[in-house]
Parts: sequence; C-alpha cells; structure tokens
Amino acid sequence: MEFKLVAEDQHSKARAGEIKTDHGIIETPIFMPVGTAGAVKAVQMNDVKKDVNAQIILGNTYHLYLRPGTEIIQKAGGLHKFNGWDRPILTDSGGYQVYSLSGTRKLTDDGVIFQSHIDGSRHTFTPERVMDIQRAIGADIIMAFDECTPYPCDYDYAKKSLRITHNWLDRCIEHFDRTKPLYGYSQTLYPIVQGSVYKDLRKQSAEYIASKNADGNAIGGLSVGEPAEMMYEMTELVCDILPKDKPRYLMGVGTPVNLLENIALGVDQFDCVMPTRNGRNGMLFTKNGIINIKNKKWEDDLSPLDPDGTSYVDHQYTKAFVRHLFSAREILGGMIASLHNLAFYLWLVKEARKHIIDGSFYDWKKQMVIKLATRL
Amino acid sequence: MEFKLVAEDQHSKARAGEIKTDHGIIETPIFMPVGTAGAVKAVQMNDVKKDVNAQIILGNTYHLYLRPGTEIIQKAGGLHKFNGWDRPILTDSGGYQVYSLSGTRKLTDDGVIFQSHIDGSRHTFTPERVMDIQRAIGADIIMAFDECTPYPCDYDYAKKSLRITHNWLDRCIEHFDRTKPLYGYSQTLYPIVQGSVYKDLRKQSAEYIASKNADGNAIGGLSVGEPAEMMYEMTELVCDILPKDKPRYLMGVGTPVNLLENIALGVDQFDCVMPTRNGRNGMLFTKNGIINIKNKKWEDDLSPLDPDGTSYVDHQYTKAFVRHLFSAREILGGMIASLHNLAFYLWLVKEARKHIIDGSFYDWKKQMVIKLATRL
Repeated sequence: MEFKLVAEDQHSKARAGEIKTDHGIIETPIFMPVGTAGAVKAVQMNDVKKDVNAQIILGNTYHLYLRPGTEIIQKAGGLHKFNGWDRPILTDSGGYQVYSLSGTRKLTDDGVIFQSHIDGSRHTFTPERVMDIQRAIGADIIMAFDECTPYPCDYDYAKKSLRITHNWLDRCIEHFDRTKPLYGYSQTLYPIVQGSVYKDLRKQSAEYIASKNADGNAIGGLSVGEPAEMMYEMTELVCDILPKDKPRYLMGVGTPVNLLENIALGVDQFDCVMPTRNGRNGMLFTKNGIINIKNKKWEDDLSPLDPDGTSYVDHQYTKAFVRHLFSAREILGGMIASLHNLAFYLWLVKEARKHIIDGSFYDWKKQMVIKLATRL
Repeated sequence: MEFKLVAEDQHSKARAGEIKTDHGIIETPIFMPVGTAGAVKAVQMNDVKKDVNAQIILGNTYHLYLRPGTEIIQKAGGLHKFNGWDRPILTDSGGYQVYSLSGTRKLTDDGVIFQSHIDGSRHTFTPERVMDIQRAIGADIIMAFDECTPYPCDYDYAKKSLRITHNWLDRCIEHFDRTKPLYGYSQTLYPIVQGSVYKDLRKQSAEYIASKNADGNAIGGLSVGEPAEMMYEMTELVCDILPKDKPRYLMGVGTPVNLLENIALGVDQFDCVMPTRNGRNGMLFTKNGIINIKNKKWEDDLSPLDPDGTSYVDHQYTKAFVRHLFSAREILGGMIASLHNLAFYLWLVKEARKHIIDGSFYDWKKQMVIKLATRL
C-alpha cells in the first residue's frame, strides 16, 4: 500500500491524498460504507459500486468470523470473492464488537474469551488469532487488535487498558510480519491509538503508534458517547503526532458535520453505520440539512427526494412517496434512504477533497457545517 | 386499450398477443409483479423496470385507498406520477383484501362496510365508490368490484355471492361509463368471473361476463386453496367461453408450473405475490427447479446464484453468499431473492411467448413443468 499527499489546505490541517492498494486507488478524504456481514445493509452491491461510487467498504471481523466463518471465506478465496466486491476492503479487528455485542467476556493480558451473540458459543480472540482471521478474510487494510474503552472511562482503567492495547499491537505486528497474505495481493496493518479522552494517554499512545512506522494509522475509542468537542480535541492532538505522510483513519465517525470537522483536523478515512442505520429509520442527510422523512410535513411533498442528490433514487422518487413507504413499512423505504445517505456521504467527502485541492476548503466547510446540522 | 392476437398454439389453447395501452405495449402472456402499496416489495423501481423488465405492475386498491389515500395520489396526478412507474399499471378492486385482511365486515347488496386492518377505522366500498377510487388511482386496467369466495365454499353461498358479483358488475360498468379518466389517458375495466369451483356457476358467470363485451376479462376466486387440477378445470371451462379476441387475466396465480398450465388453457395475464413473498423467505425459482437457499447444502456452494438467470444478481452473487445473507438476516438476502424470482417469472412468460410463436410451446411446456417442480 502506498499513500501520496495530493494537496494540503492552507487554513486548516485538511489534506487530499491517494491510497494505492492492489484492489485500486482510494482518493482521500474518504468515507467507507459499513458492510458488517460482508454486505452493506439494504443496498445492492451493484449500487454501492456504481451509484454510491464507494471506493472501499468495511467488513466486521467479529461478525464474519462467527458467520459465515473463515473456512467458507477462505474456500471462496477471500471476502472479495465471497461477496463479489472487487474494490478495496478494510476489516476492523473485532475488538469493539467483543465488548459491545458479546455476552459474558473475560479480558486477560493474553486476549479475550467471549460468547457469541448469536448462539452463546465460546471463542477466544488473541492478537495472533485476530491477525490469522484477518489474513483469512483477506481485506486490503486490516486493524490491530485493541481494547476500545467505553465513555465515560476512569483514568486508571484507560491507562491500564492502553498498556494492554500497546502490548497487543506489538504481538499483532510480530505475527503479521511472520505471516503472509493468502490470496496473492498485499495487506496493510493499521495500529490504533487509544487513550480514552485523556490528553496525556492519547499523546503517549499516538507517539507509541507513530514509532511503529506503519503504512497507515487509526484513531479508536472516539465517537462512543463523548461530546463532539472532546472528540475533536483528541483527534487534533493525535493527528498532530501521527506521521503526516501516512493516512489517518478515525474509526466509527460520524455525522456529516463530524466528518468535515475531523477532515479539517487531518483525518483521511472514516466509517460509520449512521448513513445506513439512520436511513432505515427514515433519516436523510442532505446538503441543506437533515430530513426525517416519516414526518407528516412530507406527506404531500411531491418534489424529488433530494433535487441536489447524486443517487438515482433522489430523482426517481418523491418525498411523499418515500414517506408513504415508511408509513406502510415497505422495505423499499429503508433501501432508498440507505442508498441516498451513502451517496450523500460519498458526495460530501469528494466535495471536501475538491475544495482542499482548489484551496477553498476552509470557507466551504464553515458554511457547510451550519447547513448540514439544520433540521428541515 | 387494444388487444391483438399474434399467434395461437396448435397443440394447446395458448396464445401470444399484444395489449396496447396509453403507457405502452404489454406482450402476452405476461406476469405482473405485485406492488401492493404502489411499490414492488424490496425491489428498486429501477430494477423492476430495467432488470426484471416488467411490462406492467399491479397495485392494490384496498391498500392504496387506506394509505396514502386517494387525495395524495390524486394530488400527484395518479399512481404513475406518485410511484414513478411510467409503464402500465393494473389495480385490483379491493374485493379480495376486504375479505382477507380487514376486521369485522358487513356485506349487503349495496356493498361492504369494513374496518381498516391498519387502524380499525370504518369504510364502505360500493361498486360506484370502487370505480371512483380506481379512477383516482389512475391505473390503465382497473377491476370490477366483486366478492372473491373462499375455498371451500358451499354451493348455496357461491350461488348467492355470484348474483351479488354480477349485480355489482352492472353497477361498476354503469358508473365507469358515466365517469371519465382523470389524467388524460384511458382506463379499461375488466369484469371478473366468479363461481367458486362449481362448473355450472362458472359457466353461468363466464357467459354473463362475456355478454358484457369488455376489452378484457378476468377470472377470480381461484388459487385460494383448491387443488391445482380443480383450478385448471375451472380455467379451461371459463377460457372456452370468454371471448377469444380479448385478453384473459387469471387473478392471483401462481407457481411457475401454474403459469405454464394456465397459459396452455388460454390465459394471458397473471399476478401473484409468490416471487417476492417466497423470495423473502429464501425460496428461489429457477428453470431447473426450486432452491431453498437457507438450506445447509448451499453453505459452501460458490457457484453463481443462477448461472442461467437473466438478472444481474444471478451472476453478481454466489449461492453461498446469499445463503449467508439469509443466515445473518440481512435485508439484502430478500432483496436479491425477490429480484431473482421476478426476473425469472418474466423470463418464463417471455420464453412461453417465444415458444407459442414458433410452434414449440406444447413440447417445451411438457418438459418445463417437470423441471420447474423439482426440488434442488
């Protein structure tokens, strides 16, 4: 994997870049749609590719490991072959899900013993095991196994957890370097900065991660309930320490405003379930603000779903019709909203990139964050 | 609306034809995907049009009347404008749903008082009211208001019901002739033959309906639980009486085998929820038989979903991946299966038409009905 800086904003820390992988180039800043079980929820792969124009999608190691299991994915020749997505893929390490989804779990210095949320069966994730699983899944970018601390998290726990995360990182790197990709294309390991909302821990973690000289770096443990200002403070602090010539991935973030604010702080990659999850609940993000399409005010609004939208659904369907679909609990409603939101997120980062390159990012962002947060 | 017979099979009563409507030509025999609330369940309109190649879709008057209501549809300029489907649409009369879905209902000679299955509110459908509602919805083909008798149904009830259905038909025709289409294109009213599974009643009804000289005729009250052989017997009897130069629509039918058998008896139009409903439950119809994709046997079958299929999903996804989607309860599983099944149904009727035209329908059908019923 190679990263090339294409442009840097003069009035913020925003950057435009290019990540070159064996499955194609990713133009940054980029949003990565979440495909938990290998598929983006309620959207045809065809549309993720040609309508949303997603350049990279994310898969969840925890989910894919439990179902369908690595054996089947390996038999298929990796996740790309299994789900038919031929552009880059990133997998998380399963760390977050082990804590948020599984039943009883036991954390030791060696790893985590947890129960599947599906059938209660017992499993163990260690740094080595998670590297092997991500080798078997075969994503282009894979993540180190970490502990994602919750919010709030007391200082002592965050400090102790960070020690484990850093120790696991060393084991991940060692095991990653000892093993080879299985399917003939290369994989890149991103370490993850943790440290909760404590500046000294974040600084310490960012310096430790920077010292590993990885080809890309991630910031985890944010967007877990803390105030946005606190997230931005941590992002800024961490981005200033992480190497400039490597992509920075802020995990699990966020709203359209969160994206722009973090791009301004030097983040290059994002993922979040928000466009699809909120879409299934009738929330539409647009460049003029947020629409709750279930609202009665749209009942007889026969204007296009989003006249400025880039997806075909924006022009194919009216607000009144999509509102009707949600009222009638038609699956198509969630399908349309998911597709719209993903296309909007991809438009937003593409637009941000354009403005970074032409030097107008700072002013554009200032206007956009006001519009994006408006409730329509 | 005009109907033109293009070809007649020499070895069966199958026919190929063309129905000309103001929204385009329908090549018969045809299958009409069901869009109950104005949208085909779990399939993007775009795909219904360009991938399934549906030539006409069906909307349910009962559902559309209750939600979104005729006022909004009328404000949009009819259902075509409301849902964005610019090819022909057919609406049923709501008769079937009033009996099968609504709460308490009271049938009188004048009409039916029923309770909404959504909120329990009271409504009245009379033949005149149903014509007005279907004028407001604005389908190209609309149906007479009838009573769809259940199965089994005792002779006396069927006879009494038939009298009401015929009486309502007269009132429908009278009111239809007295009113005008609202949106500048013409609408055609199909009367419906009833009579349960009683030959004399079916004969009497078919003769009565034939005497109305409508531009198209429908056969209702079948595929409601009776054995397939009984359905075929009724269809044959009725088709032999209904005018040859008008399209014949068998309502609510059926499996792929049912389609071919009824085409052989002279039916031109079909609708059924089976391809979408069974699709959402993991049942896939193919030219080689029926696949239950949830079955463990497909778990590691990495062959295309349907190598012979006409839809892009057939080649984009593998059986193992779609099985995984159903296991993981991903909406995409039902989306893929629905799209596949609809494309298959449209392929089947197109293929039937081709064989009718080139004279090979009888032999082809004989082979196909065996293959289609196979469990894979």
